[in-house]
Amino acid sequence: MKLTCNRENLISGVNIVQKAVPAKSTAEILQGILIEVGEELRFTGNDNEFGIVYEIPAIIEEIGSIVVNSKTFGDIVRKLPDIYVTLETINDGAMLSITSGHANYKIKAYPTESYPPVAFLDTSVSFDIKEKTLVDLIRQTSFAAAAQEEKRIILKGVFMEQKEGKLSFVAIDGFRLAKKTIDVEDSREFSIIVPTKILNELSKSVKGEDDVIHFCCNENQIMFFCDSFRMVSKLYKGDYIDYRKMFPREYKTSCVVNNKAFLSAFERSALVIQDEKKYPLTIKFNNNDEIIMYVNAENGILREVIAAEVTGDEIEIGMCIRNILECLKAIDEENIILSLTHALGPCVITGAEDKSYQYLVMPVKITSKSV
Amino acid sequence: MKLTCNRENLISGVNIVQKAVPAKSTAEILQGILIEVGEELRFTGNDNEFGIVYEIPAIIEEIGSIVVNSKTFGDIVRKLPDIYVTLETINDGAMLSITSGHANYKIKAYPTESYPPVAFLDTSVSFDIKEKTLVDLIRQTSFAAAAQEEKRIILKGVFMEQKEGKLSFVAIDGFRLAKKTIDVEDSREFSIIVPTKILNELSKSVKGEDDVIHFCCNENQIMFFCDSFRMVSKLYKGDYIDYRKMFPREYKTSCVVNNKAFLSAFERSALVIQDEKKYPLTIKFNNNDEIIMYVNAENGILREVIAAEVTGDEIEIGMCIRNILECLKAIDEENIILSLTHALGPCVITGAEDKSYQYLVMPVKITSKSV
Repeated sequence: MKLTCNRENLISGVNIVQKAVPAKSTAEILQGILIEVGEELRFTGNDNEFGIVYEIPAIIEEIGSIVVNSKTFGDIVRKLPDIYVTLETINDGAMLSITSGHANYKIKAYPTESYPPVAFLDTSVSFDIKEKTLVDLIRQTSFAAAAQEEKRIILKGVFMEQKEGKLSFVAIDGFRLAKKTIDVEDSREFSIIVPTKILNELSKSVKGEDDVIHFCCNENQIMFFCDSFRMVSKLYKGDYIDYRKMFPREYKTSCVVNNKAFLSAFERSALVIQDEKKYPLTIKFNNNDEIIMYVNAENGILREVIAAEVTGDEIEIGMCIRNILECLKAIDEENIILSLTHALGPCVITGAEDKSYQYLVMPVKITSKSV
Repeated sequence: MKLTCNRENLISGVNIVQKAVPAKSTAEILQGILIEVGEELRFTGNDNEFGIVYEIPAIIEEIGSIVVNSKTFGDIVRKLPDIYVTLETINDGAMLSITSGHANYKIKAYPTESYPPVAFLDTSVSFDIKEKTLVDLIRQTSFAAAAQEEKRIILKGVFMEQKEGKLSFVAIDGFRLAKKTIDVEDSREFSIIVPTKILNELSKSVKGEDDVIHFCCNENQIMFFCDSFRMVSKLYKGDYIDYRKMFPREYKTSCVVNNKAFLSAFERSALVIQDEKKYPLTIKFNNNDEIIMYVNAENGILREVIAAEVTGDEIEIGMCIRNILECLKAIDEENIILSLTHALGPCVITGAEDKSYQYLVMPVKITSKSV
């Protein structure tokens, strides 16, 4: 195997496939990156549940394949001195020689036989989506999925559903729900639960432009692909929560507020509150056209007043700051609408103009009354 | 106490004095910042060995003083919404109210009686130095002082000596020595050992411009000061190492090399070498007008060839990368000169033009011969 490629292309390729390489593995070869040289130069990272195959342009002199340790290889290529890099197997494939300018490295290589292949799904039933649209769907929902420690596996994924000309992404962690819906010109229907890991890595790997990404899935796996890469992940199995029932039928209070002002006040509040369970933030919506945020916590007393248009009943709710911050960052509009029922009922947040994004958050019990 | 000041000024003042506040202290008050309002608004941080007093402009309504927790106060002021901030003691001085725009915080305050004052040294025998000159003296030497774990306290400081119209800064950690000398128009003489902490904080706190910083010292302390601040630190006591004896009288090999190329090669070498003691880098200076850097370490084999002008005997030395990297970054010149004696004798590095900076480093024993 021998090839020469551009250093920047090499670095971006390695950065992307490294995301699928497990940090620790009992099998040394699984901590590796597979380098394959055929008609193209192709890198693969795979932890058996999530795999990435990525191609970069190269001048190919000799075909072949090899596995090298992901961390060692990545650390070296990121520091190489010249704009071109030559990779060549030596010692009958026992080592990989990396040459760039006057620098030469020789690192241990492994035969490729025992490296697990990344699945290739049937692409005849694939779907198309614009990069930018996909990145927005992921950005506005995936943060609300449950953390890795969660026992109910389905909550660690994003529910992806296409039905009646609409594609929805939904994420729920038990305290909050994020949902984004777009119209699609495709009458096929499906509903799957996708691990957040593949979605987050996918949105980091694409440029978020007008290019089209394809995806297809079977019962067990989903594959996102375009000309230069392919990402495959297993799906989570199980019935997803019937989230439609979670939204209240009617609201008693509605409030329009500037998103940035509301976000800044929450960020400052986070500074004085160390123990959110003990000292949740109290938010009072009243008819004086303002919101009062108040807490009497261990480090001091905070009071913030924000201008807002409040209609309906006066209401006071307790809020966990973390559950609100990410939602406010995910909404791109200048003003948002908060819709409320009662002190312990859900609060639903949407943009003032675009209702295709909905965020539902459960309040917490208030300990300190506002003044 | 009541005053209003600009938020940015407040943040920079707090950032600077926080450096002298101990992260942990048995006395709660010592984790505080002293705020004094008299003719000026003055902040103080002090851990009894190192103290900073810093003044910022303010509109003063009522004089007074108070101590507040450094971390809580700092975290809050950095996030305030408005460009002006009003500070006011309330509840008979039991709390400090912080108001900015519509945000109001009330944090716990402490009486100032038990806060230790920062010493004020006799300024009638002070010295002047330009900010930029002082920052360079510190930047080029202090990194070579010994780490906090070192048992010989004097090695944790920088030796500052004025003698025969020259001011020198010297730092030694047992493996390397950095020395920078400048000419001064001042015939007074002194020699002291200054803790690196005050020097590093000082160089971070000044803008490195043409302004003049004053300093003065007595047997026990040094004080750096200008109109807006004063930093006082204890001095280390003891006889400093007779470093002049450490420089060889004559050299057998001399080498001129591009500093940037040499530095890059060292940075890359650091990537394959995990255990420097086991696998030190071998550097061969030979008469082919090149330097060969070589190592056969646990993660692979590295070989780098760098163009250089070598004169004198051929020589091969082992080098600890960390001991070289910081020196090469501290030299601002394009080319550097390395002067060598024998495989285990000191290597002295200076700029090719300016010899006022000298760096001496001890080689280590070679394990792998270059090829």
